[in-house]
Amino acid sequence: MTPFAIAGVQMYVNALQSNVEGMIHRIDVLMARFPWTEMVLFSELAPYGPLHRFAQPFENEALDQFRAAAKKHKIWLIPGSMFEKTSDGRIYNTSAVIDPDGQIVTKYRKMFPFRPYEIEVEAGTEFCIFDVPNVGRFGLSICYDIWFPETTRQLTSAGVEVLLHPVLTGTTDRDAELAIARATAAQFQCYVIDVNGLGAGGVGRSLIVDPSATVLHQSAGQEDMFPIEVDLSLVRRQRETGIKGLGQVLKSFRDRDAEFSVYDRSSGADEYLKTLGPLEMPRQGSRAGLEKPLVAGDRMSHAGGNISPGPIGSDVGYIPPLADKTASG
Amino acid sequence: MTPFAIAGVQMYVNALQSNVEGMIHRIDVLMARFPWTEMVLFSELAPYGPLHRFAQPFENEALDQFRAAAKKHKIWLIPGSMFEKTSDGRIYNTSAVIDPDGQIVTKYRKMFPFRPYEIEVEAGTEFCIFDVPNVGRFGLSICYDIWFPETTRQLTSAGVEVLLHPVLTGTTDRDAELAIARATAAQFQCYVIDVNGLGAGGVGRSLIVDPSATVLHQSAGQEDMFPIEVDLSLVRRQRETGIKGLGQVLKSFRDRDAEFSVYDRSSGADEYLKTLGPLEMPRQGSRAGLEKPLVAGDRMSHAGGNISPGPIGSDVGYIPPLADKTASG
Repeated sequence: MTPFAIAGVQMYVNALQSNVEGMIHRIDVLMARFPWTEMVLFSELAPYGPLHRFAQPFENEALDQFRAAAKKHKIWLIPGSMFEKTSDGRIYNTSAVIDPDGQIVTKYRKMFPFRPYEIEVEAGTEFCIFDVPNVGRFGLSICYDIWFPETTRQLTSAGVEVLLHPVLTGTTDRDAELAIARATAAQFQCYVIDVNGLGAGGVGRSLIVDPSATVLHQSAGQEDMFPIEVDLSLVRRQRETGIKGLGQVLKSFRDRDAEFSVYDRSSGADEYLKTLGPLEMPRQGSRAGLEKPLVAGDRMSHAGGNISPGPIGSDVGYIPPLADKTASG
Repeated sequence: MTPFAIAGVQMYVNALQSNVEGMIHRIDVLMARFPWTEMVLFSELAPYGPLHRFAQPFENEALDQFRAAAKKHKIWLIPGSMFEKTSDGRIYNTSAVIDPDGQIVTKYRKMFPFRPYEIEVEAGTEFCIFDVPNVGRFGLSICYDIWFPETTRQLTSAGVEVLLHPVLTGTTDRDAELAIARATAAQFQCYVIDVNGLGAGGVGRSLIVDPSATVLHQSAGQEDMFPIEVDLSLVRRQRETGIKGLGQVLKSFRDRDAEFSVYDRSSGADEYLKTLGPLEMPRQGSRAGLEKPLVAGDRMSHAGGNISPGPIGSDVGYIPPLADKTASG
């Protein structure tokens, strides 16, 4: 086997003050209790929460602290994601991958911001794949990205064996997302490490799935750290001889006779999609069939849009729809 | 709302004798008990079971009987699928869609035969989409097809609102398939009507899922007929304003910035897949790391490959791996 120990950390995320110290503290606790851990993954937007106002350039001070923690503990560290502000003022939802020497080996900008809610966030266009030497190939996908199976297809067709999936889901579709995480593991024959946050960071229920869609760990709604040993040779085995000796899904995709013209934007195969209206916010009353004018600044949240802050100083403060612009903090 | 009543029939399928009379009988029972039903869907390979030897041309006598039943009851009828033998001797796994006038309006040849088990079966290359007047747009996908999300992407990008999914799954991956059915509904914002058989027709556990991934009906392992009223306007509503007012997934796919080069076969983005070995049968001992020579005729079953027959005359006879060539009947 090719064992590798990955720990997810499901923790309370505050929207109005930095969570960086809390993350460093939890890494220290985690490594004291589970010193065999080799990689640590936090939830989407864990360090600074879901408000754009805390967007900052990469490099930044938090990343320096995470790099020091990775080096201190000799771990791979993916500290969730942060809103990255580029020099031209654009904002991305960006993850960094830090190696056990404290170096940032790659970063990933979320491809599918949760629009129309996660507005003002640009979409990344580069896939993120990195190798852990002598272990295997890893890929990153952030939250809503996994709803688009083509993102996982691209990663796994390039050899990704473990899909790292930091999430900020505080909404009623978490249940659907968990089915998607399990389906993704089976359809693409990979591990899925899905880490959600708490409070302003989501409703928890983090999930680890193996390549046969078996759930290896499922968190509930409280703080949780879950180190688990995955086996990369299991991925290779199942890709070779099939899921439980059954579907060799990646090979069947490779050897397909069908052509998927829908991905050729000039094919017309997606004509129907153009008949759907613009990707815009439902308005108050519009879901009930009543149309009320859009209130400026009205936003809901999922995956890092604008989950509203709780009381300052509270670690648990997740109150549903209160917009960034009207927040007190 | 745009209501439409679809009934799935989960029934025992015999491998060695025709199930056509049994299907006609169940349609009569169903329509007597639930006369409001407008469409009836059976499981994959229900009429003649999973053995290739019963392959036959389209048209055939069974189709005539199904056409008469559809006309008699004024229903849309998808009588599972049958192995279709073409004039040049090829075999396809083919579904027919019969309208309430008894006309075959379209047919569908399974795109992803369950290879390497479903050998000697050719792959179809044409997608199947049809409209029910004044109701909405339907698409067909057979069993293993759903493991390849691109099949559903193609259908839903052409406006399919209800995915009809006849299944023959008798294997330990049924649980993964159920997660896939739910994920598919959420990712593509459509109803999924997943009908499995019993005996040589599968392990049951048929499933109906709405476009927010909510399970509307789940069969257990016994005979079941489940008429259910779906609402096509719910699909349109969720595609307009989002799943539970959240993700407008189809629009986000349409408006994507990312390019999925993996679907361009000349891109090299799928290079890894070419490093995987051939799509071939695991051999006895090969999964345990021991290599034994392949026994001729050794096959397992899923999705219509070669589920072995039970005793002649038994409706329940599903005995796992016994090959077509060695069967007594």
